[in-house]
Amino acid sequence: MAKKEKLLVIPLGGLGEIGKNMTVIQYGDDIIVVDAGLAFPDDDMFGIDLVIPDMSYLIENKDKVRGVVITHGHEDHIGSLSYLLNEVNVPVYATKLVCGLIEGKLKENHITNYSLNEVHHGDEVQIGCIKVGFIHTNHSIPDASALYFRTPVGTIVHTGDFKMDLTPVDGMPMDLHKFADLGRRGVLLLMSDSTNAERPGYTESETTVSSAFRKAFADAKGRIILATFASNISRIQQAINTAVLFKRKVTVLGRSMVNNVQIAIELGYLEVPEGVLIEPDELNRYPADQVLILTTGSQGEPMAGLSRMASNNHRSVSIMPGDTVIISATPIPGNETGVGRTIDNLMKLGANVIAGRDKKMHVSGHASQEELKIMLSLIKPKYFIPVHGEYRMLRRHGELAVQMGVEKDHILIGDNGQIFEFSNRAGHKTGHVNAGRVFVDGLGVGDVGNIVIRDRQQLAMEGMVIVVMTLAKGTSHILAGPDIVSRGFVYVRDSEELMREAHEKVAAVLERCEAGNIREWAVIKSQVRDTLSRYLYEKTRRRPMILPIIMEV
Amino acid sequence: MAKKEKLLVIPLGGLGEIGKNMTVIQYGDDIIVVDAGLAFPDDDMFGIDLVIPDMSYLIENKDKVRGVVITHGHEDHIGSLSYLLNEVNVPVYATKLVCGLIEGKLKENHITNYSLNEVHHGDEVQIGCIKVGFIHTNHSIPDASALYFRTPVGTIVHTGDFKMDLTPVDGMPMDLHKFADLGRRGVLLLMSDSTNAERPGYTESETTVSSAFRKAFADAKGRIILATFASNISRIQQAINTAVLFKRKVTVLGRSMVNNVQIAIELGYLEVPEGVLIEPDELNRYPADQVLILTTGSQGEPMAGLSRMASNNHRSVSIMPGDTVIISATPIPGNETGVGRTIDNLMKLGANVIAGRDKKMHVSGHASQEELKIMLSLIKPKYFIPVHGEYRMLRRHGELAVQMGVEKDHILIGDNGQIFEFSNRAGHKTGHVNAGRVFVDGLGVGDVGNIVIRDRQQLAMEGMVIVVMTLAKGTSHILAGPDIVSRGFVYVRDSEELMREAHEKVAAVLERCEAGNIREWAVIKSQVRDTLSRYLYEKTRRRPMILPIIMEV
Repeated sequence: MAKKEKLLVIPLGGLGEIGKNMTVIQYGDDIIVVDAGLAFPDDDMFGIDLVIPDMSYLIENKDKVRGVVITHGHEDHIGSLSYLLNEVNVPVYATKLVCGLIEGKLKENHITNYSLNEVHHGDEVQIGCIKVGFIHTNHSIPDASALYFRTPVGTIVHTGDFKMDLTPVDGMPMDLHKFADLGRRGVLLLMSDSTNAERPGYTESETTVSSAFRKAFADAKGRIILATFASNISRIQQAINTAVLFKRKVTVLGRSMVNNVQIAIELGYLEVPEGVLIEPDELNRYPADQVLILTTGSQGEPMAGLSRMASNNHRSVSIMPGDTVIISATPIPGNETGVGRTIDNLMKLGANVIAGRDKKMHVSGHASQEELKIMLSLIKPKYFIPVHGEYRMLRRHGELAVQMGVEKDHILIGDNGQIFEFSNRAGHKTGHVNAGRVFVDGLGVGDVGNIVIRDRQQLAMEGMVIVVMTLAKGTSHILAGPDIVSRGFVYVRDSEELMREAHEKVAAVLERCEAGNIREWAVIKSQVRDTLSRYLYEKTRRRPMILPIIMEV
Repeated sequence: MAKKEKLLVIPLGGLGEIGKNMTVIQYGDDIIVVDAGLAFPDDDMFGIDLVIPDMSYLIENKDKVRGVVITHGHEDHIGSLSYLLNEVNVPVYATKLVCGLIEGKLKENHITNYSLNEVHHGDEVQIGCIKVGFIHTNHSIPDASALYFRTPVGTIVHTGDFKMDLTPVDGMPMDLHKFADLGRRGVLLLMSDSTNAERPGYTESETTVSSAFRKAFADAKGRIILATFASNISRIQQAINTAVLFKRKVTVLGRSMVNNVQIAIELGYLEVPEGVLIEPDELNRYPADQVLILTTGSQGEPMAGLSRMASNNHRSVSIMPGDTVIISATPIPGNETGVGRTIDNLMKLGANVIAGRDKKMHVSGHASQEELKIMLSLIKPKYFIPVHGEYRMLRRHGELAVQMGVEKDHILIGDNGQIFEFSNRAGHKTGHVNAGRVFVDGLGVGDVGNIVIRDRQQLAMEGMVIVVMTLAKGTSHILAGPDIVSRGFVYVRDSEELMREAHEKVAAVLERCEAGNIREWAVIKSQVRDTLSRYLYEKTRRRPMILPIIMEV
C-alpha cells in the first residue's frame, strides 16, 4: 500500500440506544460491516413496524464493502441484513446457528441470491486487508461470538453481546483464554457491550434458572405454560429438560418460537428426546399435569401467544384454573405496563403466575460491571469505545474502563455516525457520516419519515376535522358545502351544537370570501383553517388537524 | 330506622388500577364518598388529558350523598373533586393541608360555591347516620389520614395511602395506638392500600433520603438542580434543609411545585428560614455553588421543568458542565423510557446526574409487606377488601391477610363498581353499579369515548386517506374529483406513483357506478372504500382510515 491509510470505525447503530447494532470497520478501500440489526419502534413512532439503521454510507461506498460479519442471531444484530443485502450484496460470515437463523430471515424476505459463509469459533477469515477472528462467548442465545480484527494499524476487539457464564447450559463457557492471549499481544481498540454497565456485580449463570424451573414444576398441579424469548434456545432447552424430568410432553406455540426451535433442533443446538414434542392439537390427549406449553409473549406484546391467552383470545389454548404460567423474562423498559396487564388477566382467569427475575425465572444475557471489568483487564486496550447502550450506560462503562487503567482521553464516547479514526499511534473522533433511523412500515422502507410521523402524532392526540366545499369554477361562489366531517375529535352525536356552530363559522368565512371576491384557494383555505381552529380551541381546548378541501365545478 | 338496612361499600375507582381512587360507603339513604381522584391516561388513550371515575351512581343518588371525606392531597385522591362537586354539591371534610390543596384546585376550576370543612386528626364527624374518624398516618405528603366509619352494622377502617414511618420528616409518626384501639374493639371491614403489596420487607423512612442529599450536596461543585414530585412536601423540606446546611439559596420552578410550596408554607407545613428562597431571575446573582433549583419533571414528562432543561428548552435554566442534577424519584412504570432519555440528555449537556432509589435519592410512600401485615394484625378485621392496586397487587395483599389470620372467604377482591354488602354478621359481593373511565380532553368531560379513541388509534397507526368527489344532483355523474388527500399515510412526494394508481382505481369505480346508474351514496362510498383499501393494502401492507366524502351540486 503506497500511502499510510487510517483505520476508521463508524458505528451506524447501537450507540446511544439499545438495538439496531451495526458498525463499519474500514481501512482504505476495504469496509467490513459488523452486524446488521433492527430496533423496535418507540411509543411515539406511531404505526412503525421496525426501525433499521440509515445505511446510506454503505450504499454510497458499495464497491468498498467486502463483507458482513455477524456476532449472533438476535434481531438487533441480524434483523436489517435483508435490507442491507438488497442494496449491497456481499458475503456474510457467521457461525452455524446464526447462519441457520439468517437463512430463515432471508427466505422470509424473498432474498435468494446471497453468499452465507459458515465459520467456527477459532476461525480467522481474510476479508479485504483485514483478518477477522471469531471467539466463542456466552449470551442469551447459543453460538455467539466476539470478533477481533487484525488491521494494518493494530488489533480491534469487538465483544458483541456477551456475559461470562462459567456454567452455561450447553457446557461451553466463553473462551477467556483467547481474550487473554489477544490482550497479551496488544490491542489497539476494544469495543464492548454496555447494556448492563449500570448493574453492579456479576450476571447469574443461565443454569441458575433450572432450579427455579424445577421448583415451579414440582409445585404445579395442572398445565404449565412457559413464556420466554423465542430466541433464547438455552432457556428453551432448560424448560424442555425440566419437562422431561417431570414427564411432561411439550408443545411449542408462536411462529417465531416454532421456527427457532425447529432450526435449533435441526442444527443440533437443542436436544429433545424422542416423543417429547407434541402438536398443539394433541394437547387434549394428555392430562393437564403432563403438559408443558412453550409460547411467545413474555413482553406482553398484544399479538403474541401469552397475551392472547390472557385476553382469552388464543386459537388453541384457553387458560383455566389450575394452570401455572411461568414468565421466564423481565419486562424490557417500556413494556412493564403491558406485562403487568397480561399477568392480571391471566390471574383473573384463574392461573397461578410466576414471573420475572425476583422469582429467579430469568437472568440477563449481558455482562454486569465485574464481568465488564474482567474483559477490560484481559484485553488491556489502548483505546476503548463502549458500544451497545444508551448514553448513560456508555458513560458508566467508560468510567469502569478508567478504573481498569485505560487513559481517560482514550475513552471515546460517540453517537451513531461518529467517525473514530486510528493510526497505529493515536485515535480520536473526527467527523460524522449520515446515520439515523429508517422506519419500516408494512412494505415501505423509509417512505414514512418525520413529517408523516408528526401528522400521525397530531391525528392521534387531537383527531382531524375536514371541511369540504365545491366552488363554481374560477369564482368563490359556493355550489355545495361546506360539509364538516371529523374523526378522532369528538363523538359527534354528543356534540351537535358544537358542530352546528362550527359550520356556521365556516359558512360565514366563505360568504365573506365570496363577497370580497377572494378566489385564491390558499387564502380561502387558510381563513377557514384559522377561524375553525380558533373556534374549536376556544370551545374545547383542543387543536385537531384541520384540512380544508376545495373542489370546483 | 324501621327495617334493617345493609351496609354497602362500592369502589368507583382504585380497584384493579393505580389511581382515580373513589369509594362509596352507603347505609340506607346515607352515602359518604371517600376520595375523588383522577388517573393519568394510559399510552393508548390518545390525546386524553385526565381520566376520572364514572360517577353516574352518585349523580343518580344525588339526594342521598351526605358528604365527601378526603384521605390526603394527592391528585389520585382529590383530582376529580371539582367534577364531582359540579354534579353533586355536598360538604367536603379534610385536614388542613388537604383543604389548602383542594381550595387551589377548585379555584382553578372556577368552583366557588362549596363547603370545605377542616378537620383534625382525632376528630370524629357525624355524616348522615355514620360517624367518621380521621387518624394520622404517614405518606409521601403530610397531613394524610386513615379513616374509620362507625356504621350501624360495625366499624370500617380505610387506610388511605400510607406507610409506617417511625422517623418522619415532620416528627409525627402515624397513630398506631388508634389502629390498635380500633382493632381491640372489633372491626368489621378493613380496606387497605395495596400499592406495594408485592414488595417484601419494610419501606425505608423518608428521613433516610436526607443523608443521601447531604452526601450529594457535599460532592457538588456547581449548581444543584433537584427534581421531585411537586406534592412531596417532606422531600422538599429535606432538600431545603440540606440547602440551608450548605448555605445555598433555593429557587422553585414549575407551576405545580410553586403552588404547593406556597400553600405548604402558608399553612405551616414547610419551614423555610428567612432569606433562603429567591426568585428565578435572581439566580445569576449567586455563584453556582450557592444555588439549589427545585423543579418538577422527575418522571420525564415532556413539558415539565427538568425535561425542558434536558432538551435545552427551559425559560430560565440552561444546563451547564458542573451542574449536579438529583432526580429524587423513581420512574412510575411506563415512564422509564422518558426518564432515561432525560438523564441521557442532561449528561450530554455536561451535568452529573444522580437518580433514583439505587442512589438512595428516593423512598416509596407506600407500606411494604411487613407494614401491611402489621396493619392487618392491629386491626384484626373480620372482612378484608384490598384497595388501591392492580389486580395482582390486590391478590398478593389478600394472601398476606390470610397469613395474618383473616378467613380465606372473608377476603373480598373486586373491581370498580363491585357492590360489597355487609350486615353485622356477614359480608359478600353482590351486583355491580356503573363504573369505569370517563375521559377528560381539554374542556370536554366524557365527550371523547371509546369510538373517538379507536379512531385516534387507527389514525395514529395508519393515517388517513380522504376521497372527495362532487356529483350532479340526484345522479352518479361526476362533476369534480375524485381528489385524494392523505395525512399520516405516506410522504406523498415519495409516493407519486402509488397515489396516481390509487386515483385511477377510484376513478374506475366511479365510472362503473355511473355506468350502472348507482346513486346510493352509501353504496358508492363503500365501493370506493373497499377498492382503495384493497389496493393500498396490497401495495403497502397498511390499512389507513379511508373516508369517502360526496358532495352534490
